[in-house]
Amino acid sequence: MTTIVGFRTTDVRFATSTLLDGSDAMNPDPDYSAAYLIITTDAADGHEGHGFVFTIGRGNEIETTAIDALAPWFLGRNVESMLDDMGGLWRELVYDSQFRWLGPEKGIMHMAIGAAINAMWDLKAKRAGLPLWKLLSSLSPEAIVALVDFRYLQDAITPAEALSILRSALPLRAEREASLLADGYPAYTTTPGWLGYSDEKLARLSEEAVRDGFRQVKVKVGANRADDLRRLGIVRSVVGPDIAVAIDANQAWGRDEAIERIRELQQFDLAWVEEPTHPDDILAHAAISAAIAPTPIAAGEHAANRVLFKQFLQADALQVLQIDATRVAGVNENIAILLLAARFGVPVCPHAGGVGLCEIVQHLAMFDTIAVSATTQGRVMEFVDHLHEHFVEPAEVHDGRYWPPILPGSGAEMLSESVAANAHVHALR
Amino acid sequence: MTTIVGFRTTDVRFATSTLLDGSDAMNPDPDYSAAYLIITTDAADGHEGHGFVFTIGRGNEIETTAIDALAPWFLGRNVESMLDDMGGLWRELVYDSQFRWLGPEKGIMHMAIGAAINAMWDLKAKRAGLPLWKLLSSLSPEAIVALVDFRYLQDAITPAEALSILRSALPLRAEREASLLADGYPAYTTTPGWLGYSDEKLARLSEEAVRDGFRQVKVKVGANRADDLRRLGIVRSVVGPDIAVAIDANQAWGRDEAIERIRELQQFDLAWVEEPTHPDDILAHAAISAAIAPTPIAAGEHAANRVLFKQFLQADALQVLQIDATRVAGVNENIAILLLAARFGVPVCPHAGGVGLCEIVQHLAMFDTIAVSATTQGRVMEFVDHLHEHFVEPAEVHDGRYWPPILPGSGAEMLSESVAANAHVHALR
Repeated sequence: MTTIVGFRTTDVRFATSTLLDGSDAMNPDPDYSAAYLIITTDAADGHEGHGFVFTIGRGNEIETTAIDALAPWFLGRNVESMLDDMGGLWRELVYDSQFRWLGPEKGIMHMAIGAAINAMWDLKAKRAGLPLWKLLSSLSPEAIVALVDFRYLQDAITPAEALSILRSALPLRAEREASLLADGYPAYTTTPGWLGYSDEKLARLSEEAVRDGFRQVKVKVGANRADDLRRLGIVRSVVGPDIAVAIDANQAWGRDEAIERIRELQQFDLAWVEEPTHPDDILAHAAISAAIAPTPIAAGEHAANRVLFKQFLQADALQVLQIDATRVAGVNENIAILLLAARFGVPVCPHAGGVGLCEIVQHLAMFDTIAVSATTQGRVMEFVDHLHEHFVEPAEVHDGRYWPPILPGSGAEMLSESVAANAHVHALR
Repeated sequence: MTTIVGFRTTDVRFATSTLLDGSDAMNPDPDYSAAYLIITTDAADGHEGHGFVFTIGRGNEIETTAIDALAPWFLGRNVESMLDDMGGLWRELVYDSQFRWLGPEKGIMHMAIGAAINAMWDLKAKRAGLPLWKLLSSLSPEAIVALVDFRYLQDAITPAEALSILRSALPLRAEREASLLADGYPAYTTTPGWLGYSDEKLARLSEEAVRDGFRQVKVKVGANRADDLRRLGIVRSVVGPDIAVAIDANQAWGRDEAIERIRELQQFDLAWVEEPTHPDDILAHAAISAAIAPTPIAAGEHAANRVLFKQFLQADALQVLQIDATRVAGVNENIAILLLAARFGVPVCPHAGGVGLCEIVQHLAMFDTIAVSATTQGRVMEFVDHLHEHFVEPAEVHDGRYWPPILPGSGAEMLSESVAANAHVHALR
C-alpha cells in the first residue's frame, strides 16, 4: 500500500519573448512557462507523478497557487485506490462545488485540476512501466468509458455509443500500433510562421521545413492585412503547390471581418483556418465555416472544456479538432473529447508547441489512432522546435513525423536541472 | 493630479455552510467569501476604491492571488487619466496577452480583472459624490458606448445600434429616475427555497416572503425528483396562485433529463426555470427552451463573458437574462451585456445573494432601467437576506422592492471591522 507524501509545485518560466518565438496576432511576446507539479509517494520504486499547466508568463504564479490548493485532496491518500479509479478522481475534483464556482470548469482552476490529474496518469504509467499512449491503448473499452463523465454529453454521445466506437477499434489495435511504430504519426510545423519573424526568416525556415520532410506548414495571420497577403505569397512560392499551408488568426477577428479576410486569403489554397474568432463563439465559428467552405476551420486549443467541444461538433463549427494537453481537466477530459470527435467523424489534429505540449499531447494522439478513431487519415500533429531539451524524453520528430515515445510516463517530466534553473521567485509585496 | 499608492487584497470568508444557507443541487455547502480589493490614492479626499470577487469558499486565496497580480497595472499610475478612460483600462487589462491566456476571458483571471475595474468605478463614483447608478445614468450615450469593446459583438450589436438604444432612452431618463425613486425596483426572494432547508422552514419562509411583499419566490430543485415535486407543491399551496414561483436547478441536469424533469414541474405554473444545465451549453439551453415554451429559461450568473451572453441571445436560449456583479470583467462588460439584452428585447433580472452581490448589482439594474432598457416591465431582482450587515450601505429592500442606494460609490464597500474579523489566513505549506 502506497501513500502520497509530496505535492510540490514550481513556477517555471523561460524568457522566450526576447526572440519573438511564439509571437502571433494576440500574443506578441509570450514567455513560455509551466506551473509545474511533482507528486511523490512513499513507495520504494521512487516513481513520481509529473504534470503541469502551460502558460505564457505573467500569472503563472496564480496557476501555481491553484495547483497548490489541491494538495489536501492528495496528501496522505492511498495511491492504488486513486489510480484504480481515475474516473472517480476526476469527478471528485471537477465537481468539488467550491472549486467549481471559480470556473465553472474553465480557466485557471480547471487547468490546475488537469495538471493534478495528468500527474496521476504520469505516475500510473511509470508504475506500469509503460509510455502513457501504450497504457491507455491497453485498457478495455469498458475501462476507457469509465474514465469519462457523461453528465453533460449524452445529447451527443451516450456511454453505449462510446463503447461501440471503442469496440469497433479493438480488433484493429495491433495493426494500428504496428503501423504507428513503423511509420510514425504525421507532423506539421509552425516554426517558420511566427508573426514577429522577418520575411527572410519566414522564407528560409519554410524551405528548411520542406527539406526536413514536413508536408504542412502553418503561418500566423490576423494583424496587418497587407502583411498577411505578402507573407502567405512568400510561403506558397517557397514551398510550392504540393505542401499544405494552414493559417492561424489566434482569435483576432470578429465574425464578419473573419469571413472577409479569409476569403481574400483563400487564393493561397489553405489547408485550414485556425481560431478565426473568439474561442467561445460557437455560433460565429459555424457562420464562418459555412461562408468559407470547403476550407475547414480548426479550433480547440482554447476551448475550455468538453461541453464547448460538444457544441462545436453539433453546430459543424469546426472541421479539424485541436485538443490541447493542458487546457482542459487532463487525460480524462481529453478522452471524452476524442470520443466526441470520433462520434462526429471529425479528425483530431492536436495543438502543441509552447513548452512540453508536444511531449504530452503525442500520447493522446497515438492513443486515438490506435484505440479510438483507428486512423491517421486527415490527421497531423503540430510541432514547434522549442525547449524540447528540457524534457527527460524530448519529442522525437524527424522525416516530418512524430515517433512514439519509449520511456514510461506521460512525457511531462522536465529535467530537474531545468526546473531548478528556470524557477521563478515571485516577489512578495 | 492623483496617484494610486495602495492596492491591497484580503481573503474574506464567512462560515455560511454551517446553516446550509445557500445550499443547492450543485453547491451543498458554500462558505460565502470575497476576494476583496482596496485601492488607495494620495489624494487628500481619502476616497478608496473597493471591489471584490464573490466565491463560495475554497480557492478564495487563488482569486486573491489573481487580483494581486494586477497591482503593477495600478500602483504609481495617474488616477484622473485612468478614470477618464475606463474603456481603455478595460481593454488594457482584458487583452493583456499573458493574462488572457489563463482564460481566455473567463474564470479566475477574468473575475480578478472585474474586481479591479469595479474598484475603479467605486472610486470614480465616490470622487463624483454619486451612487454608481446615478453616475452611470448621467453619462452621455457616446460616453457609455466608449466603455464597451465591440470586437466580438458586432454580429449582434454595432456601436451605432448601441448608441441608438441609449439615445432612445435619453428623453425618458428623468421620468424613469423619478419612478425608481418613488416606486423602487421589483425584488424577488430566494431565502425560502434553499435545498438544505426542511419542509417546515420552506413553508414558513415562503409565507413570510409573501407577507413581506414579495410577488415572486424561487425554489431550488434538481437533486431528488420526489423532493422537487413535494417542495414545489408546498410552496404553491402556501403562496397561492397569484405569486410567481421560479425554480433553479443550478446546472444539475443534462439536456434531455432537463426537459423531462421540467415538464413534470410545469404543473406548478413556473415563472422561469433557471440554469437547467451546464452554463456553457448554449445549444442545450436552446433545445430545452424550445421544448418547455412558453416557460422561460433564466440564465447568466455563470456565463463567463459577453460572448456567451451574445450567443444565448442569438440562439433564443434564454428569455430572462441574469447579470452577475462579479462573474464578468466588471461594470464595462455588464454594460455590454445590458446593451445586448436591450437589442434583443430580453428582460434583465440580476442574480444576487452571496455576499455583497445585492449591494453592487442593484446599481447596474437601476442604470439599466433609467438609461438602457428604460423599463422595469418583466424585471425582478434577486434578494437573499444574508450578510448585508457587513456593508457600509446594506441593500434597502422592503415592500418587495429594492430602494435606490444613496451613498456615493458602487455599494461594494464592506465595513472595515467585517473585513478584519473575517480575514482568512491561508497556511503556507
